[in-house]
Amino acid sequence: MEDELRDLVEAEDLGALRRWLDDRPPHEVAAELGRLDQPAMALPFRLLEKDRALEVFEELDPVHQQCVLDGLRDQAFRELVEEMDPDDRARMLAEAPATVVRRVLAGLSPGERRTTAALLGYPEGSVGRVMTPEVVWVHPWQSVAEALATVRLRGADAETVYTLPVIDIGRRLLGVVSLRTLVLSDPEERLDELVNTEVPSVAATDEAEGAARLMQEADLLGLPIVDSEQRLVGLLTVDDAIEVIEEADTEDVERQAAASPLGRPYLAAGVLALARSRLPWLLLLIVAATMTVNVLTFFEASLAEVTALALFIPLITGTGGNAGSQSATSVVRALAVGDVRFGDLPKVLWREGRVGLVLGVALAAIGVVVCTLFAGWRLGLVVALSLIAVCAWAAVVGGGMPLLAKKIGVDPAVVSAPMVTTLVDATGLIIYFLTAHAVLGL
Amino acid sequence: MEDELRDLVEAEDLGALRRWLDDRPPHEVAAELGRLDQPAMALPFRLLEKDRALEVFEELDPVHQQCVLDGLRDQAFRELVEEMDPDDRARMLAEAPATVVRRVLAGLSPGERRTTAALLGYPEGSVGRVMTPEVVWVHPWQSVAEALATVRLRGADAETVYTLPVIDIGRRLLGVVSLRTLVLSDPEERLDELVNTEVPSVAATDEAEGAARLMQEADLLGLPIVDSEQRLVGLLTVDDAIEVIEEADTEDVERQAAASPLGRPYLAAGVLALARSRLPWLLLLIVAATMTVNVLTFFEASLAEVTALALFIPLITGTGGNAGSQSATSVVRALAVGDVRFGDLPKVLWREGRVGLVLGVALAAIGVVVCTLFAGWRLGLVVALSLIAVCAWAAVVGGGMPLLAKKIGVDPAVVSAPMVTTLVDATGLIIYFLTAHAVLGL
Repeated sequence: MEDELRDLVEAEDLGALRRWLDDRPPHEVAAELGRLDQPAMALPFRLLEKDRALEVFEELDPVHQQCVLDGLRDQAFRELVEEMDPDDRARMLAEAPATVVRRVLAGLSPGERRTTAALLGYPEGSVGRVMTPEVVWVHPWQSVAEALATVRLRGADAETVYTLPVIDIGRRLLGVVSLRTLVLSDPEERLDELVNTEVPSVAATDEAEGAARLMQEADLLGLPIVDSEQRLVGLLTVDDAIEVIEEADTEDVERQAAASPLGRPYLAAGVLALARSRLPWLLLLIVAATMTVNVLTFFEASLAEVTALALFIPLITGTGGNAGSQSATSVVRALAVGDVRFGDLPKVLWREGRVGLVLGVALAAIGVVVCTLFAGWRLGLVVALSLIAVCAWAAVVGGGMPLLAKKIGVDPAVVSAPMVTTLVDATGLIIYFLTAHAVLGL
Repeated sequence: MEDELRDLVEAEDLGALRRWLDDRPPHEVAAELGRLDQPAMALPFRLLEKDRALEVFEELDPVHQQCVLDGLRDQAFRELVEEMDPDDRARMLAEAPATVVRRVLAGLSPGERRTTAALLGYPEGSVGRVMTPEVVWVHPWQSVAEALATVRLRGADAETVYTLPVIDIGRRLLGVVSLRTLVLSDPEERLDELVNTEVPSVAATDEAEGAARLMQEADLLGLPIVDSEQRLVGLLTVDDAIEVIEEADTEDVERQAAASPLGRPYLAAGVLALARSRLPWLLLLIVAATMTVNVLTFFEASLAEVTALALFIPLITGTGGNAGSQSATSVVRALAVGDVRFGDLPKVLWREGRVGLVLGVALAAIGVVVCTLFAGWRLGLVVALSLIAVCAWAAVVGGGMPLLAKKIGVDPAVVSAPMVTTLVDATGLIIYFLTAHAVLGL
């Protein structure tokens, strides 16, 4: 089905297009729509029947949602936006230009406008932005049968009914009860016997990523969200939590490769947007890389005396960079999933130092052969000793830097691979030339 | 609470330890237990009351589960393992040494032994290994009230009751119905009116990662798993799917840094295990890096003539490597989340080429200044032109290689950052020296 949709749109075969759209689940339709060029997106979208259109629309990335909206007439536009879940609508608006936000808010019914504006009032990246405000709650004095009646009455509009916050008369959160518990319990039983008060709750202004990871660790399907006075304001559902984690992981991956997060799908970002996300880091790194020029200038006399020393510069710096990246990546990931923390620094450095030595010795065995072939055994010895020292040093730097970054409040992903590589390049060269001086007696 | 548990264990203050254990949710206790040294783990575990012990145990990593089991007496061991969910048990046994597997299987009741052995019969990495076999199913001829009665009767033992597979008399899967639908529907209605037949199902022998990503895209809480004849054999629940995705992402991250997946938490892996996971890649990369030695040997005469050329070797190769890593990482992530596919190769190359040119021009502006300061304007011109060409080339290589890898069935994560860096090192040097020849007329 590689790019089938594109072919159908280009052929303007409406019958086949409609059949194609009807045959697929909404998330697949959304994925394929997102791969079309922007002006082409609206046509197939208009062919979807109304309910499916909404489902597909909610699966689209915010950038693509706007492309579709741009292609709709006012009536269709209003209907679509009115029917969206409030949290999805807030997410879309957060990234839309001001004119679109005005057009959307103006078209909403007063109730929907209020909920949306409230969500947009929470800071960017907070749980408030991604929670659903449409929650079914129950009270501790209700019986199971009464609570089930509440679910029947108000469940149709809610995003989920599997996690039911239990609140007192002042809307204060007491705990949660699951629909499973209700269904499996005696209808006469009172909720205060069943409420689970051990479940965590999170403030709407807290960071969304932390809340999502908490849900994941505690295997929750819904996490109640409260205001500063412990009053219920919403619920974070597991599918939204998964999305938050996926976005956070994508950002980490981008940062690890020294690029600022794009915040949109790869193909939806323009050439200049891509360049902008990468350039600041490359500039920083090239400024750092001038350290290597300094080091080499310092040793220029040795280079002029033994030109063959230059032959192994990329081998030494490249290997050190790779070894450092490996350590940094292991430790960054271990930090992200909570396996290590700052207090483990000595343990991590000691482990990485030994790992680096083991790796260095193994690589030196290869290096000495290659180098002896090209430039004789004395230079072979220099390269072998340098590889051992550089690998151990790179592993220690790579393992330690993410922990230090975290300690001083910098995202550890930022300091990994390229940053470590650049640092290890300069220091690795110093190790290499000092070894050469000692062995060759320059 | 940094390492509080460790202090309590060392102080052997059983009262305080018990209070600490009782005050925390199971996933936190598990996380802190996992950070203790292996022999110390069993003591606090034995202090947990029975029900909590099971919850904590199920949250532990398989490696840590074995440490705990090693410290338990036979009776406690048998009870704990008997009460585990079959899929958690199978996951633990999959990584246990044969003696532990025998000890565990021998201690189980016949019914539990059968389910566990069945799960272990599925290939490693398949859905069969991670699904739960304890499913509550319903039939299309049942009414809503009858189905709810089934849930009440058999729901207590199942991992979830929110997604109920609907099967015919031959156990063949017809679709699913959610508990939410049952609760919100008229008790008299028949399930064949309500069953959702659009929900995908997956074969137990299929890859777990694909099934988990499918659940995530389609926002499902449960995915029915079938055998080759479409008969229901289990259900993949959303919390297990999240775990599968997290493990797959960790593996991707490790592969991107040129290390084989560890398959266990960072601190639980020994120094030799870490070295083993990294060494093969470093060896491969150092062999590839000898290409750079070849290139430099070829241009050794030029190096001897203009020693200053050597000063900028790490700057050129480092910058090329960083630019290539950025492209590779963007494209690997876009592939993983489904934003690009092989058919997009020309589009990706064209985009990355332009991005690389933009970046190269910006960096050249810096490079020319630095280099002119150190070595005069003619070498500055060489470095500037080389940076432009190397950045464009690195971006194209970095963007194209993951797509090609995917096409020939290699994990794209494997070919990213370090692999691209090493390749770009050698080719970047060729570009640099050819430019030098042209400009300086060597």
